[in-house]
Amino acid sequence: MEQTVIEYVLSRLKDLGVKDVFGVPGDYAFPINDAVCNDKELRWIGNCNELNAAYAADGYARIHGLAALSTAYGVGELSAINGIAGAYAEHLPIFHLVGMPASRVQAAHRLVHHTLGNGEFDLFYKMTEPVVCARAIMTPDNCVAETERLIAAAFYHRRPVYMAFPGDYADMPVVGQAEAVVVATSEVGTLAAAVEAICHAVSVSKRACILPGIMATRFGLRDQAAAVVEASGLPFATMFMDKCVLNEAHPSYIGIYNGELMNEQVRAFVEGSDCLLAIGMMLTDFNSGSFTANIDPAASINIMPHRVRVGTAIYHNIEMKDVLVMLAEKLPRKYGLGPRVEGLGEPVGGEDDKITVDYLYPRWEQMLKADDILVAETGTCSMGLGFAKMPNGSLFLNQSLWGSIGWATPAALGAALAAPDRRTILITGEGSHQFTAQEISQFHRYGLKPIIFVLSNDGYLIERLLCRDPDIYYNDLAQWHYKDLPEVLGCDGWFSARVTTCGELDEAIRKAEACGSGAYIEVVTDKYEASELAQRLADSIATLYK
Amino acid sequence: MEQTVIEYVLSRLKDLGVKDVFGVPGDYAFPINDAVCNDKELRWIGNCNELNAAYAADGYARIHGLAALSTAYGVGELSAINGIAGAYAEHLPIFHLVGMPASRVQAAHRLVHHTLGNGEFDLFYKMTEPVVCARAIMTPDNCVAETERLIAAAFYHRRPVYMAFPGDYADMPVVGQAEAVVVATSEVGTLAAAVEAICHAVSVSKRACILPGIMATRFGLRDQAAAVVEASGLPFATMFMDKCVLNEAHPSYIGIYNGELMNEQVRAFVEGSDCLLAIGMMLTDFNSGSFTANIDPAASINIMPHRVRVGTAIYHNIEMKDVLVMLAEKLPRKYGLGPRVEGLGEPVGGEDDKITVDYLYPRWEQMLKADDILVAETGTCSMGLGFAKMPNGSLFLNQSLWGSIGWATPAALGAALAAPDRRTILITGEGSHQFTAQEISQFHRYGLKPIIFVLSNDGYLIERLLCRDPDIYYNDLAQWHYKDLPEVLGCDGWFSARVTTCGELDEAIRKAEACGSGAYIEVVTDKYEASELAQRLADSIATLYK
Ligand SMILES: Cc1ncc(C[n+]2csc(CCOP(=O)(O)OP(=O)(O)O)c2C)c(N)n1
Ligand SMILES: Cc1ncc(C[n+]2csc(CCOP(=O)(O)OP(=O)(O)O)c2C)c(N)n1
Repeated sequence: MEQTVIEYVLSRLKDLGVKDVFGVPGDYAFPINDAVCNDKELRWIGNCNELNAAYAADGYARIHGLAALSTAYGVGELSAINGIAGAYAEHLPIFHLVGMPASRVQAAHRLVHHTLGNGEFDLFYKMTEPVVCARAIMTPDNCVAETERLIAAAFYHRRPVYMAFPGDYADMPVVGQAEAVVVATSEVGTLAAAVEAICHAVSVSKRACILPGIMATRFGLRDQAAAVVEASGLPFATMFMDKCVLNEAHPSYIGIYNGELMNEQVRAFVEGSDCLLAIGMMLTDFNSGSFTANIDPAASINIMPHRVRVGTAIYHNIEMKDVLVMLAEKLPRKYGLGPRVEGLGEPVGGEDDKITVDYLYPRWEQMLKADDILVAETGTCSMGLGFAKMPNGSLFLNQSLWGSIGWATPAALGAALAAPDRRTILITGEGSHQFTAQEISQFHRYGLKPIIFVLSNDGYLIERLLCRDPDIYYNDLAQWHYKDLPEVLGCDGWFSARVTTCGELDEAIRKAEACGSGAYIEVVTDKYEASELAQRLADSIATLYK
Repeated sequence: MEQTVIEYVLSRLKDLGVKDVFGVPGDYAFPINDAVCNDKELRWIGNCNELNAAYAADGYARIHGLAALSTAYGVGELSAINGIAGAYAEHLPIFHLVGMPASRVQAAHRLVHHTLGNGEFDLFYKMTEPVVCARAIMTPDNCVAETERLIAAAFYHRRPVYMAFPGDYADMPVVGQAEAVVVATSEVGTLAAAVEAICHAVSVSKRACILPGIMATRFGLRDQAAAVVEASGLPFATMFMDKCVLNEAHPSYIGIYNGELMNEQVRAFVEGSDCLLAIGMMLTDFNSGSFTANIDPAASINIMPHRVRVGTAIYHNIEMKDVLVMLAEKLPRKYGLGPRVEGLGEPVGGEDDKITVDYLYPRWEQMLKADDILVAETGTCSMGLGFAKMPNGSLFLNQSLWGSIGWATPAALGAALAAPDRRTILITGEGSHQFTAQEISQFHRYGLKPIIFVLSNDGYLIERLLCRDPDIYYNDLAQWHYKDLPEVLGCDGWFSARVTTCGELDEAIRKAEACGSGAYIEVVTDKYEASELAQRLADSIATLYK
């Protein structure tokens, strides 16, 4: 049976585990949309708009390892491009399938809709270049080879790839045979040398500490990283972006390391170690406590996806997986006692009291259960939640580097679709929520039951803290009645509440957990009620923007 | 008093008539945001997200002639880029002001938030290239000269320009003096020759007809184009994108020319003319009735912004304004009787009948008043409304070439802000509305009172008509309860209704017109109830995508 270009690509994506395709249909993309809907092993997930679709694909890829997105030429793909850029920054392989006008229309430079009216058809293909790791315009002739090239790139870099399908080509039979994806392998000698160097550094150290990083998750190597912790017996801390890369319930976990901004005990321990073994760590502004983290390159190691740094020496062409597996075998058993991880403690506040951060964040921490997926939006809420102690097997998702607000609501949808049996909790500021709030309608449409908290503090609080004049009016918002939003958006039967006191919050959480449907809670606080890190960040402006 | 870089740019934009700046604030953009809010002659219009802000700026520019938009580095600007692309395609000068990280942060290649984590800072500047007519990264040294260059480009092309402000530079004093904007002028001899050639062609013709096009509006030359109609006495038709470029209440107006798809009388008259005088017309797919328009290049003239085509001869370097002014003086007075323009007639349907297209579109036409601004979304609704006869001075706004759905809701906001004394009517399909619906909260926030119709036909109807299997599930939508949306979004006191019969529609329109507040009406029709052009378009697929 002959496969068409689009069928071939979809069949290869299915081989890799793709089950859902996010997006919005469009006329030039009909061949893609049709092929997805006509494939019984695939499900089309219609989103409210393309940016939301890209964010949802991002959230899905965080759980599922990869995702597929389809958008229409020009209008659709450009609407999604900020979401693709986020996936690039945060290392998520999204296959972006774009439906283009037919090749004959392009060749004739026709003035058709969704073009700039200048007869050019490769401009959006060009625009996408910096935010994908590979891209191709698919034809019957190049389809087989290009598909393999793009798959290889997506997995080597764990970043988005772009595939455009001229409408006529999409439905033509593919020509040629598939070549196997070339999987990167380690240079044997370099691998041995690097592992040897790491083992040596660890064994001569007086105090060693592991910093498991986001790359371990992105490259599907959580278990291998956990095995290294297990084998070595060493304590581990994580940085903000790396939260929950390893289980926070593990006895070796000592907490979040955030430079001088937070957790002084953890900072002292980490920075007092003479051997820091990082696994795919990135020293970004928010990861490093506004660049206050003080990590001595000479006394640290970083195992990156395809190379390893030991002190100032770099070992190229070795794969993280091979390094971790070999390390778990060869690392000396060191043990080491770090500080005990602290959670947020007991909520402080009486039943009728206003909701303060001293009540709110500990209360949120209390409600978390094993295997929960917590999606936290950029803003004061994620800065507070980052220091909650997460239960066994639970995950903390946050767009820590790209930091595009509005991300969390659709990302939570994507995560929930990827793991329908787990509990998905979305916590977002109300300002961010306004960006993409319509997407909550899709939770209900797809039978999902998230618990959603909207932190309502009358504006863009984190910006009030960082800008010159906190009360300046650009940080004000349109006033919504959030509580009734799910119902209007068709989430029939959801539990919904607006809470202003600690007692109301308690009751709403209890009801949300028991209601058996989706739940949506607006949490009202004072305008300047900010989590500790948010306040510290404001005090650190000098180094943050230095 | 020394002006800073951002103050200088804003002062020049104010000289050009900018009064409002649309956007979303962000930390790297604080210097821009602060400068706008601290300037008493400027108003910051906060939107729910950046794409909505760009669409709103687009709508504003359609009325006001130009617009300003400010977004944050990376996350904000890329979210807006599809709106900028639309403004490029549709010739609207939007000044896009982007706040970048400080120059020292860029020089140090720091891994900061809103970057791709690769230490590169010029990637988004590169990505914007195809969708702006000029761009610059502003510094104290280049600010004066670059500002003038960008202003000149924006007005010469009537397209967006991009100005990025590294945070530290934005607040530094400008260096140097302003040079005057170089305004393009016509070559005198060429101008005379072109006008001569046009006058000759018109005077020897047996039947001439004018086709005023969108470029006349975009270049601010409505009056000059109208004067040509007046002087010549010739009948005029418009194409879809050009609707309302000239007053449809004018006695010389004969209706919409849409190739073979609609209005056979108009087609016969236009195509039967031996001299077609187009003023800034574009022969795009939707403008040409899926390429069925049959315009003989040899027997037609097109006056473009900076050149003129007469038959197959092209006259370069002459300005539309000069051509029109001279034509109004020199054109022979021809007169000529075209077909009488037809509106949509009387609404057909009984009070308790379901709402059909035979009732709906004529009823909408009936309610239109002089000077109304009608914003019509891409989809079956704009295709129906395009053939309504618009009253004196009223405007029809539609994104006919770019066709990015979701545009209409924020664009209507922008239009209403630009013309608060006129009545703004938004008509959108519910599928498109879901893209950007949150923006209706801003109408209320800024004290505007639009009348909004949401055409609710259970899915993406125009796509059902164009795709292979109309019932395929990618054209289905999440089910919202639209009627209650304004209230939830804070539009307190608005009139709101859901109507399913002709009588209910009538009553709702009457109440909306009398309520003194904003109004929001969900109009429910059967799933396949499509305006005539939408149906014809479906029948024309072979030429549309040929
Ligand atoms: C797409 C995008 N636009 C703008 C910004 C700048 N920004 C960062 S945080 C923030 C405000 C968040 O406010 P909210 O969600 O209400 O949370 P709060 O800080 O008030 O808790 C803004 C506008 C951004 N990060 N991303
Ligand atoms: C940003 C964007 N995404 C996708 C499309 C493709 N598209 C064109 S019309 C349409 C459906 C419009 O549906 P609706 O607004 O409900 O109007 P209807 O045709 O049902 O009246 C879609 C998805 C587009 N034009 N723009």
